[in-house]
Amino acid sequence: MDFELNHAIAVLERTPATLRSLLHGLPPAWTDATEGPDTWSPHVVVGHLIHGERTDWIPRARIILAQGPDRRFTPYDRFAQFRESEGTSLPDLLDEFAQLRAENLSNLKSWQLTDAQLALEGQHPAFGSVTLRQLLATWVAHDLGHVVQVSRVMAKQYRDAIGPWTAYLSVMNG
Amino acid sequence: MDFELNHAIAVLERTPATLRSLLHGLPPAWTDATEGPDTWSPHVVVGHLIHGERTDWIPRARIILAQGPDRRFTPYDRFAQFRESEGTSLPDLLDEFAQLRAENLSNLKSWQLTDAQLALEGQHPAFGSVTLRQLLATWVAHDLGHVVQVSRVMAKQYRDAIGPWTAYLSVMNG
Repeated sequence: MDFELNHAIAVLERTPATLRSLLHGLPPAWTDATEGPDTWSPHVVVGHLIHGERTDWIPRARIILAQGPDRRFTPYDRFAQFRESEGTSLPDLLDEFAQLRAENLSNLKSWQLTDAQLALEGQHPAFGSVTLRQLLATWVAHDLGHVVQVSRVMAKQYRDAIGPWTAYLSVMNG
Repeated sequence: MDFELNHAIAVLERTPATLRSLLHGLPPAWTDATEGPDTWSPHVVVGHLIHGERTDWIPRARIILAQGPDRRFTPYDRFAQFRESEGTSLPDLLDEFAQLRAENLSNLKSWQLTDAQLALEGQHPAFGSVTLRQLLATWVAHDLGHVVQVSRVMAKQYRDAIGPWTAYLSVMNG
């Protein structure tokens, strides 16, 4: 699928409600579950998404749009949520994510980006030149990847409980 | 995680709203997308879940609870949705799924299942003896597996659009 800004925004604006519908009010047995040592729980994932709203997507878009002399992005801290949000309740994190996402999308829409702007480049710390279009597409795919992760982590908690059905449910082996 | 009926119901009652939050109002470019030939779109998945509400989970639970002389389950038709719901709009399917799920959970709760009942067995067409507990756990994991699938199908539509970020997003290679 080619990137279209309206299609991207349509997904980005749904993610907070999707995670709220999936997780809000569930017992910690689900929301603190992981896939094993050094893997993330649904609670940790929401903290990670919040950090992205604050430091990654829109700040990087601003660097690209400014086209200043130094267009290098600050590396994304994939572990910030363990410092910043581990002690915060999941309902509070879901609220915070929804609020930050709404503000960021309000900014994004207000820019009324042109195709020429979407083709502007910044410098990724690992990949080098990337376009604003690629950055925004990655924001969408990153959201969806974490919805995949949260649902998969939860499903795997029943790996033993489903007995012989493990043979039919590929999610148990992902 | 050991199976607990209340924990299972907590997930089952959230799935319709999760899929609604994720999918309702999205353009068909997202909801009719697939992972390639003979793979399912989000639209098809919702039709499949509806068929399960009608013919699989609760009907099989009733067979187990009745403990009649023939406890064999009818095989699940994994392709029924291509006959039954392909021409129905996604908003209508989301409504239908939510209504059927609510009715089914109302029945399930009304049974006030005991541990002894959860240990009763039926005959799966492929696996042989399975317990009611395993059937209900599979209902939950099956829901979550399809949330995984829907999110993954959508993410993969941006495989090319994200450029070099494919290296960081494992969802693209699942």
